[in-house]
Formats: sequence, structure tokens, C-alpha cells
Amino acid sequence: MGVMRLGYVHTRVTDLDDARRHYGDTLGMKAVHTEADRVYFKAWDEFDHHSVVVEEGGVGLVKMGYKVATSDDLDLFERRAQQFGCLTERMSRGDNVGIGDGVRIVLPSEHVLELYNEAEYLGSEVGLVNPAPFPRHLVGVGVPRIDHCLVTAEDPDTLERFFSEVLDFRAAERVVEDLDGGGLLGSWMSCTTTPHDIAFIKGPNGKLHHFAYELSDWYAIKNAGAIFTMDDVPVDVGPTQHGITRGETVYFFDPAGNRNEVFSGGYAVFPDTPTKTWTVDQLGTGIFYIGRELSERFTSVLT
Amino acid sequence: MGVMRLGYVHTRVTDLDDARRHYGDTLGMKAVHTEADRVYFKAWDEFDHHSVVVEEGGVGLVKMGYKVATSDDLDLFERRAQQFGCLTERMSRGDNVGIGDGVRIVLPSEHVLELYNEAEYLGSEVGLVNPAPFPRHLVGVGVPRIDHCLVTAEDPDTLERFFSEVLDFRAAERVVEDLDGGGLLGSWMSCTTTPHDIAFIKGPNGKLHHFAYELSDWYAIKNAGAIFTMDDVPVDVGPTQHGITRGETVYFFDPAGNRNEVFSGGYAVFPDTPTKTWTVDQLGTGIFYIGRELSERFTSVLT
Amino acid sequence: MGVMRLGYVHTRVTDLDDARRHYGDTLGMKAVHTEADRVYFKAWDEFDHHSVVVEEGGVGLVKMGYKVATSDDLDLFERRAQQFGCLTERMSRGDNVGIGDGVRIVLPSEHVLELYNEAEYLGSEVGLVNPAPFPRHLVGVGVPRIDHCLVTAEDPDTLERFFSEVLDFRAAERVVEDLDGGGLLGSWMSCTTTPHDIAFIKGPNGKLHHFAYELSDWYAIKNAGAIFTMDDVPVDVGPTQHGITRGETVYFFDPAGNRNEVFSGGYAVFPDTPTKTWTVDQLGTGIFYIGRELSERFTSVLT
Amino acid sequence: MGVMRLGYVHTRVTDLDDARRHYGDTLGMKAVHTEADRVYFKAWDEFDHHSVVVEEGGVGLVKMGYKVATSDDLDLFERRAQQFGCLTERMSRGDNVGIGDGVRIVLPSEHVLELYNEAEYLGSEVGLVNPAPFPRHLVGVGVPRIDHCLVTAEDPDTLERFFSEVLDFRAAERVVEDLDGGGLLGSWMSCTTTPHDIAFIKGPNGKLHHFAYELSDWYAIKNAGAIFTMDDVPVDVGPTQHGITRGETVYFFDPAGNRNEVFSGGYAVFPDTPTKTWTVDQLGTGIFYIGRELSERFTSVLT
Repeated sequence: MGVMRLGYVHTRVTDLDDARRHYGDTLGMKAVHTEADRVYFKAWDEFDHHSVVVEEGGVGLVKMGYKVATSDDLDLFERRAQQFGCLTERMSRGDNVGIGDGVRIVLPSEHVLELYNEAEYLGSEVGLVNPAPFPRHLVGVGVPRIDHCLVTAEDPDTLERFFSEVLDFRAAERVVEDLDGGGLLGSWMSCTTTPHDIAFIKGPNGKLHHFAYELSDWYAIKNAGAIFTMDDVPVDVGPTQHGITRGETVYFFDPAGNRNEVFSGGYAVFPDTPTKTWTVDQLGTGIFYIGRELSERFTSVLT
Repeated sequence: MGVMRLGYVHTRVTDLDDARRHYGDTLGMKAVHTEADRVYFKAWDEFDHHSVVVEEGGVGLVKMGYKVATSDDLDLFERRAQQFGCLTERMSRGDNVGIGDGVRIVLPSEHVLELYNEAEYLGSEVGLVNPAPFPRHLVGVGVPRIDHCLVTAEDPDTLERFFSEVLDFRAAERVVEDLDGGGLLGSWMSCTTTPHDIAFIKGPNGKLHHFAYELSDWYAIKNAGAIFTMDDVPVDVGPTQHGITRGETVYFFDPAGNRNEVFSGGYAVFPDTPTKTWTVDQLGTGIFYIGRELSERFTSVLT
Repeated sequence: MGVMRLGYVHTRVTDLDDARRHYGDTLGMKAVHTEADRVYFKAWDEFDHHSVVVEEGGVGLVKMGYKVATSDDLDLFERRAQQFGCLTERMSRGDNVGIGDGVRIVLPSEHVLELYNEAEYLGSEVGLVNPAPFPRHLVGVGVPRIDHCLVTAEDPDTLERFFSEVLDFRAAERVVEDLDGGGLLGSWMSCTTTPHDIAFIKGPNGKLHHFAYELSDWYAIKNAGAIFTMDDVPVDVGPTQHGITRGETVYFFDPAGNRNEVFSGGYAVFPDTPTKTWTVDQLGTGIFYIGRELSERFTSVLT
Repeated sequence: MGVMRLGYVHTRVTDLDDARRHYGDTLGMKAVHTEADRVYFKAWDEFDHHSVVVEEGGVGLVKMGYKVATSDDLDLFERRAQQFGCLTERMSRGDNVGIGDGVRIVLPSEHVLELYNEAEYLGSEVGLVNPAPFPRHLVGVGVPRIDHCLVTAEDPDTLERFFSEVLDFRAAERVVEDLDGGGLLGSWMSCTTTPHDIAFIKGPNGKLHHFAYELSDWYAIKNAGAIFTMDDVPVDVGPTQHGITRGETVYFFDPAGNRNEVFSGGYAVFPDTPTKTWTVDQLGTGIFYIGRELSERFTSVLT
């Protein structure tokens, strides 16, 4: 079966109380576990133990966890990653609270990726019997689930090859310098029917551009944007529509400065859906279809 | 890789000109091929040769085509289907215009299912280079793609077992008489990250309840409903929201009486997402979350 | 200046606690005043003391209050009403809690209409300085304000003449038996730029068909519908779109059986906007543009 | 009755063919009359002869027309304007094609305002009998009607006093330097139930910031934004939501550089609705509630 989805994002934050207000009160995630230096959050439509971990001390991405279907997948992906030349190590149940055994891989882009196939089951907030479409009493934005990460890499070609050859992801959309496919500047890659489960653009290794939550629709995007203002959350860009993925979006920052996104829409991507290509002169339109411009802040702030 | 998606629906219609107006002018599909007794249609965001075939002479479902990833999948699914006790036969490139070799299976519910892994490539209407999110000049409703079928089966248990054991589908939601899982009345099954690629409810074998198009959002659903009135398309139910799948919907009929649906939204289903269960006393709420009632027409009109 | 808007609706309910749950917890109005047998509610974007009064003991409309701009308007409308042949009486500050002096008129349809030009000011929940577009913590549906009433009248012609000649309302849309204007079956009349501040259809005198709240948009309509199901509020019709007014709607019942509506959209009506006419054979389409059918319940349940 | 609404906007453009493509093909207005140096356009839900006139030769606002209810209103407003100290002159039927007699007033801000009470009736595109909620075949964005103008004035206080004392407009929202009301920087004024029929901000006399079209909702706003990109229309800001008026918006430029807006939503304003006040430090939030920032371009480009 392979990789099922992005399971968790673990980031550093400068202040745990600020993070609790942001991820808890504003985004509406539930703090499911707390330690001295970190808090674990779960969104209402997720079933596993947590999807976001914030750890006090700085800013930026600690690691991303992707859940695979079986332990055989772990073995397969470990072997392939080693063959690809990546450093890997085994991780054990409990190395991450609520997460089972797994494989830790240092990506060609120096990001740490963890694969695992088991997590403690907490269940969603609407239950499994005659479930309501959303919880009756949502908190703040009320994000249902995390969706994807976008990171930067000095060598996007190699990272794309890694996700394709090792993890069986497919590129839904690519930004290139040459229409023949050369000069890869960014790739939006998928292991599901959604247009991106991981994305990366050319930039320094090891950095996070943003991680994203899926919302139900364009109205929820606007509503989220208004709540960000009420809660003094800095908004970076949006609401607007992407060219790449066609998704609707607002980008914003957590109190530590990590960029988050709320995202809705996007089209269905199947294994035989041909890859779309954006030329670098249309990068602004690809990223923001309506405004067609990238701000300095959007391209330069990484954590 | 297995089954990728619903590829085509082939139905009977009483009049080809009426069908051309409906699937062409109202829904906005493009007639890509015409024969004396049938027309082949493609939606704007689809790449393969066609997704809907209408054949003059009566009403009802002729067959459904699901596209698989590889020819190995064809072999595997053929073998499994035979082991399951189904009648199968090989079909050859051109048996269906624009469709490659494949396997034809008579389901336990007497529906005909065709599996194939190749189709003539026509491309979408927005292209692959710097694509717009939708065509500048949409026709009518402007449906982007077909999404799923809902059929009836005398023995839903066996049909669910077929889709699970033979084709690796998973049940996203089920309606049962008993909460322990007994007395299956309907199952919504998925081979993608969307909540249903096939669904069936208890009823006579071989019948079609509806097939569905995916629209972008709740606003497009309303817009479609208004266009149906302008074009004298009979509306069955909606706009409303499903409990099962959480999707937004309008049901309507083609001029021959085959039920169609426009559908948007729905949540992401992953291989480890637990199956949701609806009890039969909440069937109305499961099907139409807001109205909570099933009309006689909705439950009894099948083609 | 004349009539400014519908100011309050006063209805009978069978149980005050049930009504408090409905108008308070589900619709999100604030109980601003309570007496032994009645509760006064205000919506978040209203400024005056209350807009809904529920009084224990039965079901149905007690009276409607429309706010006028000046005390001169009271005198003018009183005089005109008397000339029209209506029974009128003066009411004094405090006859209705929080409401100033006014004129009570028994309409030709036997409904009681109160005109007043002063009300106790409580203010909206977002304030007047740098106001947010909606309160940060909405309750339930979170209705912003009441919008209009639809009542029944044995003689719609006379009632339309009353609202036109006495209160300077204009008919935005009319349903007629004959296209020359004869056989009036319903009229949607406006004293603002919205398409209806009062509406009435042919039926028994003195009865209420529904009163309505304005919501922001089609998404809020769907969201309200889902909350109605979560809170066991019976839904009558919708979500759907009206032909008449073009508004989006869900009809539902309070626990006593009074029909409420949440409404959004509609077009701008100016004093020179020509009246639209619906022929009786298109009544279903006029009322529900997409479904084009009126249910027995929708046409017969009045309180 | 007084002023009913903004009736027409007359602007200069650098090229008539470009303007025809913009106002015709992209916005979907109909060219109802053409002269050597100008084109008259009407939107689909408007009844009068035209609402936009483009005149070749430069850029910027020639004049605005507001329609009043009666010829008595013309007399009254002429007298009041003269008393206010404004230069006025009578205009005759045909001075503007399709427009009746009227009064031309030079505003304290040096803009030319024309009042008239009659216009040639062309009718809307959905008719008056059993009308559809929108035309079956919309062109481009398909704007239904014009809504308001925003102009600049060296002395906003005097201009606000003019619209209040002469034309009976009310300020729905104001931006001030001091919370006691001093230092007026902008005023959004209404003669209808919508939050602005005219608005102005401090700036050079005689200039246009933008004129606006009303769209049905937030989805139509996004759709418009995407069409602007397809048609190479420069987008200034948006889609986003205003704090002031709560409306949803995209700002864009016509080929001559005149700023246009598509606008939806906003709240109902009644004669007794208290004026909202924004402090200058929250100006960014007032104008763009989500982004909270004004760009150099947005504040400085005037025509």
C-alpha cells in the first residue's frame, strides 16, 4: 500500500503558552498530551494520537512523520532509502509519544522524515456511528486535519527523485526553468488522490516554508482569515486561489514565526494523471493565480 | 497499484438528441465520438477518450468501466474474480472505442464491470502547461469529471466482499440493521482518497440508482441546480448535504430517466480511516443530513 | 422616511424552556429580558432591545412590530390606516418592554401590526469602534438579525393595497392567476432595498407562515441546516434557492411548530425597480427555483 | 423619496477597443449604444439605458449620475445644493443618451454629479415574468449591476456634510484621526439599505479611486478573480474581505488604468443604524480585514 499520508509535523516554537493559544484556541486543535517542553495536538477529524507537536526552543521544523500502511512498507522504504544513499535509523514505539516502531530517514534535503505504521488510536470528535459532518461546538477555525508540508531544498531534482523512487510519490505539478523539464524549481508530489502530500521549492536545505491544514471550502478559508485578525495572528498572503493545485488558501504565522496554511479544494490526482508544468516566468501565477505576484516575505521567510 | 478510479459509465437512453442536449449542452461535456446508436462524452478535466457513453434503446446501465494502473492488475483481478466465482471474459482494444484491452466481469449483483489499463489520450481542456483552474468558456454546468456510481444489489454483503477481496476497495461508510455489522443495507467503498468510488444499496440486481459528477463546491452545486431548472431537467433531491460522505449534492434525471448526481466536498479517506456505521433508523439522516427524509421517488426509481 | 424595517416578531410557544433552547442555543440569540410567561431575544447584529418575543401559551403570531423613522411617521400612518378603514389604537412606552410609543393597527388580514419609532438601545455584539465582521464566539447558527415575515390573508389584494397606500411599501414580486395582474395569490413587498420586508400569500386570515433571519451566504445556510439536525430541529424545506427574491433558504420549525426561515442573498430592489410577476402555474418554481415543487406541509402548516 | 442609487459612471479611457473587451467580454456588460468616441454599457440585472459610459481620451472620472425618485427631488436637491454653495446647472433630456432632464452639480470635491429621475427603459436580461435568477448564458464575470463609487476629496468633512445635508445620505462607517470624530479621513455613505452608495477618502479633489460592481457572493468574487487572470486584467488587491462594510472584494484595473471593484456581501444599513468608527491606526484592518495592510499602489493610484 505504501505511504498513506502526512501523519505529523513536529516544529520548534519560542513559547509553549503562545503555541497553545495558536494551535489550540485559534486553530481549534486539542492538546492531547503535554510534557515539560512540548505539547501534542490533534485535529477534530483525525483518529491517531496527534498530528502536530510543538517543542519549546527556537523555531523551525524538527521532523515530519508520514504513516505507511504496513510494517512491510517500513522494511521496503528503509531498504530503498539506504540504496538511495540516505542515512536511516530505526525508531521504537514510544520514541514519539503515541507512535509505533518506524524508520527515520535523513532526506537529501537534510530534513528528517519518519515513517511509521502504527499510532495510538484516539478517534475523531464526531465518532463512527451516525456521525455529524462536523462537531457541534467547534473551537476557533476548527481545522479538521493536517494536509501537507512545503519545504525547501538546494537540489529539488534529487529530492523529487527520492520521493518518486523510494516512496512512490508522483509529481502532480512542477515548476521548471525549461519547458523540456530541466531546471526544476519546485515539485508538488502526491501519494494520495489529493494534489500534494509533500511539496518543495528550491532554497536552503532543512528549512520549512509551511505546513497546511485542510478546510472544507472557500467560505471556511475566509472565516479563518477573519478569526486570524480577531486573534492577532499575522497573515502572510490570502485569501486567494493557487494556480498550482487550484487550492484556496490563507498563509499565516504561528507566534514563533513558523508559516501555516489553511487550504481547501484542489483537484483529484490519479496515478495516471499527467504532470502539469509551470514555466518560471509564470511562477507568480502558479503560486497565486489571482494576484500573480510573490511578495518578498512569502519567498524569503523560512524556518 | 490496483484500481485507479471509475473511468466510464455506459447507459441506455431513449433518445440520442435529448441525451446530447443533456450531457452536452446542460452538463457541458464534449461529444468526442458519435456512432449511429451512441455518443461518447468527455468532461473538461478528464484526459482519457471518454467517461460517459449513451446508447439509444431504453434506459439503464449497460456497464461501468474502472481503470487499473497496469496490465498485471488486469491479470490479478481476473484471477481473483474467477476465484470469487464470477463470470469473466477478456475484452480487446477497440471493443470499446478508445479503450484498450481489459477484463469484463459479471458482478454478484449482475452488473457488468470492465477493467482496463489503457485509454486513448485526448487531454483536458486547460492543458498541461501553466493551466488555468477552469476553462475560460465553460458550457452549462461545466462538469469537470465523473466520480462514482451507486447501484443496487440483492445481496450487498457479497458485493461488498467482492469489491474488498477482489478489487481492494475499502468501505468508508456502511448502513446496517444491527450495530454489530449485521444486515448490511448499503456500503460506500473507496479505492482512492475520496469517500466513494462505488456504492450500492439493497435492491434489485443489475440496476442503477445514479452516477455522479464531481463539482468544485457548494456554490457550483446551487448554480447547477438553477441551470437544471432553466433547461427543464427534472431535479430529484437537493441541493443538500449528505451525512454519508458529507458531500453536497443535487440529484436529477437525464431525459431517459437515468438518475445523475452533481457532488462536491466529502472528506479524505485513507487506508487506515475507520469505517463509519449508520443504523437503519438514521438512514434518512445518513443520506440527506439536513432534510433527514427519503422520498418514495428517491428510493424507488431505478434504471 | 417612513417604515425602516421589521423590528420585532412576537409569537406564542408551547414551552418557554424549549423556546429558550431553540432561539437561544440553536439560533444563537441572546435572551435580554425574561418575564414569567415570556422571553425577549436579540440577535448579535441588532441594536435595539429585542427582535423576537416568545410568549408561553399555544402557538402562532401575536403581533409584528415595524420600526418607523419619526413620530411624524406614526401620526401619518395612523391617519392613513384609519382612512383605509383599519382599527387602530395608540400604545405607550413600555406596553412592550424596551419599546417606545406607537400605533397598533389591525390589518385587513386580522394580523396585529405595531409601529413605533423608539426602542431601548442595547447595541450590537461587535461594537461601533473598529468592529469585527462577526463576533469571535458565535453561538449555534449565530443569526445576525431578523429580516421579514410571511403571513396569510384571505384577501391579498386588499392587504397589498394597505401596505402600498398606508405604509408606502412596493411590491417586488407578485404571484397572479392572470398575467394581466388579476387574481393575486401572493405579494413580496419592500420598504428597504431588500426584496421583502413583508410577504403574504392567499390563505386564512391572521396566520403566520414563517418569519425569517438573514444569514451572510449560501454556506451559512448549509451550516445552519446541519446544526438543525444536530439539535433535532425539524427542517421543512431546503437548503435551496428561491425564484422569488432569488434568496437562499432553509425552512424549519421552532419547538412549538412556528415556521422559521434562514435566508441569504436576494437582489437589490430600488423604488423604480419594476415588479416581477409569477404565473400560478410556475408557483412551485417561484417559491423553490431548483426543486420546483411545493410540499403539502409547506403550503398547509400555518400557526 | 430622494436619491435611489448610483445610476451611471462616466469615465475616460485610452482606447475604446480595449475598453470594449474589458467592460464587454470580461465583465460581461452589454454595449447598448456606441458613438465615435464613446460606448455605453448596461449590466444584465439593470433596467435603465446604461450604467457605464467610457469616453476615449485619457483616464479618470468624467462624472457620476445618481437617479432620484421624482422631479420634485431634482428641484429640492438643486435648491439645497445652491444653498450649500455648489455650482449647479440644469441638463436636458438627451444631454446624456437615454437619460432625462436633470441637475448637474459640481461637488465641493470638484467631482461632477448628475441627478436625474428618468432614463430610457431597456429591461433586464431575465425579464419580468417568471424570471430566472441569472441569465442562462452569462458572459465572462457577468456583473449584475454597478453599486458604488469611491472618490477622493481634499476636505472629506465638507463632502460628507454635502451628501448628508443636500442629498440625505447617512454615514455607515467613518475613519477618523480622533475617536471623538475629528480628523475625518474617509466616509462610507448610504442612501439605500446597502452600506455604501458613495464613499470618499482624503486625497486630491476630482479623482476616482474606484467604482464597483455587485456580485452575488464570495464564490463569484473568486471566480471573477480567476477570469481576470485569464483575460490579463491587472488585479490590485484581493480576493479579501473588508472590515468597513464587511463586503468581499477584488480590485482590478481597466485597460486605461481606472480601478474597478467587484464587491459582494455587506450588511444591511437602516436609517437608525449607528455609524461605525474606525481609528486611523486600524485603517489597514478597516479596508482589508484579513490582510490588514494597504499597499502603496492601492493608496496612491487614482485616476
